Amino acid sequence: MESEIQRVPGFSWFGKNIGIKDTTLDFGGILADVPCQAAGVFTRNTMPGAPVLVGKAHLRNGLLQAVIVNSKNANVATERQGISDSETICQLAAKACGINADMVLPSSTGVIGRRLPMNVIINGCENLIQDFGRTEQHIENFARSIMTTDSRPKWVSAKVGNATLLGIAKGAGMIEPNMATMLCYFVTDAAITSDELQAMLARVVNQSFNRISIDTDTSTSDTVVILANGLTRTIDSNAFENTLTSMAIYLAKDITRDGEGATKLIELVVSGAQTAEQALLTAKSIINSPLVKTAIYGADPNWGRFVMAIGKVFQYTVNISEMSLLFGKDPHRLRIDAAILDCDEVPLAEISEILKQNEVNIEVVLGKGAYSERVWGCDLTEAYVKENAYYTT
Amino acid sequence: MESEIQRVPGFSWFGKNIGIKDTTLDFGGILADVPCQAAGVFTRNTMPGAPVLVGKAHLRNGLLQAVIVNSKNANVATERQGISDSETICQLAAKACGINADMVLPSSTGVIGRRLPMNVIINGCENLIQDFGRTEQHIENFARSIMTTDSRPKWVSAKVGNATLLGIAKGAGMIEPNMATMLCYFVTDAAITSDELQAMLARVVNQSFNRISIDTDTSTSDTVVILANGLTRTIDSNAFENTLTSMAIYLAKDITRDGEGATKLIELVVSGAQTAEQALLTAKSIINSPLVKTAIYGADPNWGRFVMAIGKVFQYTVNISEMSLLFGKDPHRLRIDAAILDCDEVPLAEISEILKQNEVNIEVVLGKGAYSERVWGCDLTEAYVKENAYYTT
Repeated sequence: MESEIQRVPGFSWFGKNIGIKDTTLDFGGILADVPCQAAGVFTRNTMPGAPVLVGKAHLRNGLLQAVIVNSKNANVATERQGISDSETICQLAAKACGINADMVLPSSTGVIGRRLPMNVIINGCENLIQDFGRTEQHIENFARSIMTTDSRPKWVSAKVGNATLLGIAKGAGMIEPNMATMLCYFVTDAAITSDELQAMLARVVNQSFNRISIDTDTSTSDTVVILANGLTRTIDSNAFENTLTSMAIYLAKDITRDGEGATKLIELVVSGAQTAEQALLTAKSIINSPLVKTAIYGADPNWGRFVMAIGKVFQYTVNISEMSLLFGKDPHRLRIDAAILDCDEVPLAEISEILKQNEVNIEVVLGKGAYSERVWGCDLTEAYVKENAYYTT
Repeated sequence: MESEIQRVPGFSWFGKNIGIKDTTLDFGGILADVPCQAAGVFTRNTMPGAPVLVGKAHLRNGLLQAVIVNSKNANVATERQGISDSETICQLAAKACGINADMVLPSSTGVIGRRLPMNVIINGCENLIQDFGRTEQHIENFARSIMTTDSRPKWVSAKVGNATLLGIAKGAGMIEPNMATMLCYFVTDAAITSDELQAMLARVVNQSFNRISIDTDTSTSDTVVILANGLTRTIDSNAFENTLTSMAIYLAKDITRDGEGATKLIELVVSGAQTAEQALLTAKSIINSPLVKTAIYGADPNWGRFVMAIGKVFQYTVNISEMSLLFGKDPHRLRIDAAILDCDEVPLAEISEILKQNEVNIEVVLGKGAYSERVWGCDLTEAYVKENAYYTT
């Protein structure tokens, strides 16, 4: 797996500015030479954006050949007008590329509740085919064109046998685990059917994007899609899924690290749980706690807040005398056993040193149970507040 | 109902500094002349503080005669030592006041995970009876002694027939609805049995403290207690409960208004829901959304974030064409019907003006259902982050 762009045979890309809001890149696309087997996982928000509804419909036959994305406007809560606008974009892009409109998956990301500036987009779709290219610069432009409050573009690539996999994502805010989160596009030249891809993608998303949280808010636009053009015929399916999982976790962590206002990536393992549900609920309770997040931001060794967050999972009782908190990574891992808690003996200064790092590893052992879960989150800072207090104004 | 202190016959008070952390008031108490009928509602956090465990045990017979509170240290996650410390405080206070130890309810609030400085507290309990008095200044000192990050003391009083009710509370952080929240002590000279008080208090808390949220974090120390000394024999039970409910809502709102870093009190009504559960889940989803809270902080008319927060209540589907958002209070109430949403027509500047006020009233109409709920919350600001990033250091 590499943090570099590797080109995938048979796919073209573009990213450009069409002036939706300002002069930054705001319009991008992916085009495959041939129809692709495809799969997608979408937001569980019950108020999904128009592009999510249109994209789901277009994916129904398991085939896609293009993706068209705009940033700066999410086309959400725009009712029938929004759906009609998304369909128009698919039609214009399809016509320009000589394919059918239902082979295009549309995505929009940005502010909610405003109609897309269709004049600008219609102009942007003229001679669209000329914008596509296969260079790394074209791919990077695409990755930049889908950014909103992301501070940098996000990609990852890998080889599985002779096939290549490339993933491009954006994140930043309105992100909470337990659902497909953000926008992420994978392309590959491997030969896999859409049914197999769909089952695989659901498992992959559950271990990666469904395990991150930035602010507990569930985006209306979350979309993870994979397109496989089948140019490379032989593929080890298990190896492919393992690689895709690693790539998705890589992008999920990168999204979290670049969360709005975040200064730290937090990797949290909750182990020793009685059930998988207890492990996940407890992990989410901790990773989403504003008081835990602010303490980690300030490198404040206020470990009592972990106890509070564990205790607000009302469904399960934890015996505090069986509980341990571990801070840092081996071999420099600090273990605090709640059973021998004597406050004078807790190495507060050493915990604080660990919390000062850019990546903070924490494990919470709840007891002697067999279940564990791993999630990622970020700290809560003044910059998150500032960024979101004046987003539309 | 008055925002002034009214003295209740038969109760004495004190609040003083004993040097638990600094020189501010940190130790307080309430003493009744006679044993009182009493009731309490405590945190649902499964890791309650030692004082909560001891207090529940002492309340089991429905009788209390005193309350002893310290701030600056919550005596939570302190295991058997913490319970023993809380019991010692009750014994010392009881001895000084000439009552039984199990007639004392102990409370502690402040940092989690540190042993109480018992030497300081033992000294503070010497000659304790001399600290008690019945003046308004004594009551105010008590209200100040239980404060942590509160910016001001909180009280409310009322008459029910010839009886007087007085409530004293503290709040500020680690507060989320659906549980008894924070510390709050009511005293009255009305004659009511502890069984009746307990049933009444559960209903009252559910309509007041269980409907506020500051940061979704559930304190380990939440306690609401009422003591009734029975000096005033005749009491209209319904009038008493109505008044107690109003007082509790008053204190709950005051706690929320004074939430850590908060600049605004938000009153949110969710109506037109299909069930009471849908109304409450949706209200909590909105009032706890960091993106809604930051938008209100910045007076950003980003109403799409309400749509997002409504949509993350996965259990229920809302028909967006039946939905309305109302901002402000009659007669200057702005109504936005999602059915006629045309982004150019939403009066964004007027919404922003309403969001600039200290108290923001918002109603979300989900549809034509019969159920509604009212909750209170506050905005999320840089000051909340700052206050909590370096709390113990």
